[in-house]
Amino acid sequence: MVHEARVRVRYAETDQMGVVYHSNYVIWMEVGRVELLRAIGFTYKEMESDGIHLPVAEVKCRFKASALYDDQVVIRTRMLNLRGFLIHFGYDILREDGTLLAEGESVHIVVNRDMQKMSLPDKYMVPFRKAMGG
Amino acid sequence: MVHEARVRVRYAETDQMGVVYHSNYVIWMEVGRVELLRAIGFTYKEMESDGIHLPVAEVKCRFKASALYDDQVVIRTRMLNLRGFLIHFGYDILREDGTLLAEGESVHIVVNRDMQKMSLPDKYMVPFRKAMGG
Amino acid sequence: MVHEARVRVRYAETDQMGVVYHSNYVIWMEVGRVELLRAIGFTYKEMESDGIHLPVAEVKCRFKASALYDDQVVIRTRMLNLRGFLIHFGYDILREDGTLLAEGESVHIVVNRDMQKMSLPDKYMVPFRKAMGG
Amino acid sequence: MVHEARVRVRYAETDQMGVVYHSNYVIWMEVGRVELLRAIGFTYKEMESDGIHLPVAEVKCRFKASALYDDQVVIRTRMLNLRGFLIHFGYDILREDGTLLAEGESVHIVVNRDMQKMSLPDKYMVPFRKAMGG
Repeated sequence: MVHEARVRVRYAETDQMGVVYHSNYVIWMEVGRVELLRAIGFTYKEMESDGIHLPVAEVKCRFKASALYDDQVVIRTRMLNLRGFLIHFGYDILREDGTLLAEGESVHIVVNRDMQKMSLPDKYMVPFRKAMGG
Repeated sequence: MVHEARVRVRYAETDQMGVVYHSNYVIWMEVGRVELLRAIGFTYKEMESDGIHLPVAEVKCRFKASALYDDQVVIRTRMLNLRGFLIHFGYDILREDGTLLAEGESVHIVVNRDMQKMSLPDKYMVPFRKAMGG
Repeated sequence: MVHEARVRVRYAETDQMGVVYHSNYVIWMEVGRVELLRAIGFTYKEMESDGIHLPVAEVKCRFKASALYDDQVVIRTRMLNLRGFLIHFGYDILREDGTLLAEGESVHIVVNRDMQKMSLPDKYMVPFRKAMGG
Repeated sequence: MVHEARVRVRYAETDQMGVVYHSNYVIWMEVGRVELLRAIGFTYKEMESDGIHLPVAEVKCRFKASALYDDQVVIRTRMLNLRGFLIHFGYDILREDGTLLAEGESVHIVVNRDMQKMSLPDKYMVPFRKAMGG
């Protein structure tokens, strides 16, 4: 399953090269991830209320073309892997016309409120697995 | 007492007009405020550990000239008022050569962990008053 | 005329008090303003292509309640004034349930590419005036 | 040659987990890189005035421990490679007490104002090579 989220580029996100500053793609990856979770049936907010957090262990992004001010940017997010305490997401970030702007990946650790690794309870494991298979 | 803090403009803080995006001045005001507290004898981190928070009730900023990438920006912070539950700071933001870039103000409410208004304990009231008078 | 834009609070916009960091409201005001322009018939991007810029001369914001992670935030933007080289916008920022989170204002100067004050050409003046009257 | 730059964690950089939001490390990597250039004899601002830009082609970051509000963070930057149009930097980001917080890498393309690949002129190539060897 691939989920598509959209963001409109804000002026605040541009830099003096006239394009989007690169760290904003990492924030957009978060937007894509959060919307993927909403699409598979729960919210990250709800997970946090249940005492489960997904801090980022690793993030990478390869930049192919520049997003410009006011562009409608499409974030295609998919789950790449779910093994033990680790969840792995992949992202394609595109301009509305289909131009690939960037490819990203993020790896997250499942932890409790005290930042100790934990297994996902079924409530979350089941939709995650479905997202993997779909 | 006026305290001077310095920040170097980051590329991330510029926008496609080739100048610093205006919301960053509000973040610099926070830097100035936090360094003023350090200069008068404590840290905002310590205040928070003591269960005292200073959320922003109001902020304003008038922009006079543009900060540019890699500029050394000087933030001159002073306490304007301290009355009841309210603390009022003023800021002059300048380029290193003395050009005034912006003037700002912020009003903060003194609250406890449950966001209820509280009076500042002497530990903090005394240095704050000294900063006012100085 | 009042225009409503919506943003979903990003995790990146929260701070360690567990609420949205205040400078983000200034960015949301930009979102509201840009969407108001789109609603009255043009884009800020187009204005910039025509060599017309609206840098911020003054911004203020009063904070009433806190936006939380994942909230749908509504930005109600209206034009308050348009006189000579100055354009004045007002903003109400609300939680989806109608709670007022913040009230803001921004004043902008109409300038050309060389940052010299200029009058708005009719192409833009006409819809702006309509937005004022409506 | 390894260059050390320092940043103080801003409240704006924290998130509701009570730690620094991860995209800020990417901005700190920029700070480290820019200060490395200053240390080897020129500024990135000067490069841009000479029509040479170093947009980011790839960035990655592995997170080991969390930076906290008000921490003094040390960014150790070194050049990993310089080949053809590509420049490769590595970063260790540490808390002041030496705890490793994150390891990062970034790859940059040397381009001119029209975003076409170009070779670095000697003015910049010589100090870059020295930084590699040292």
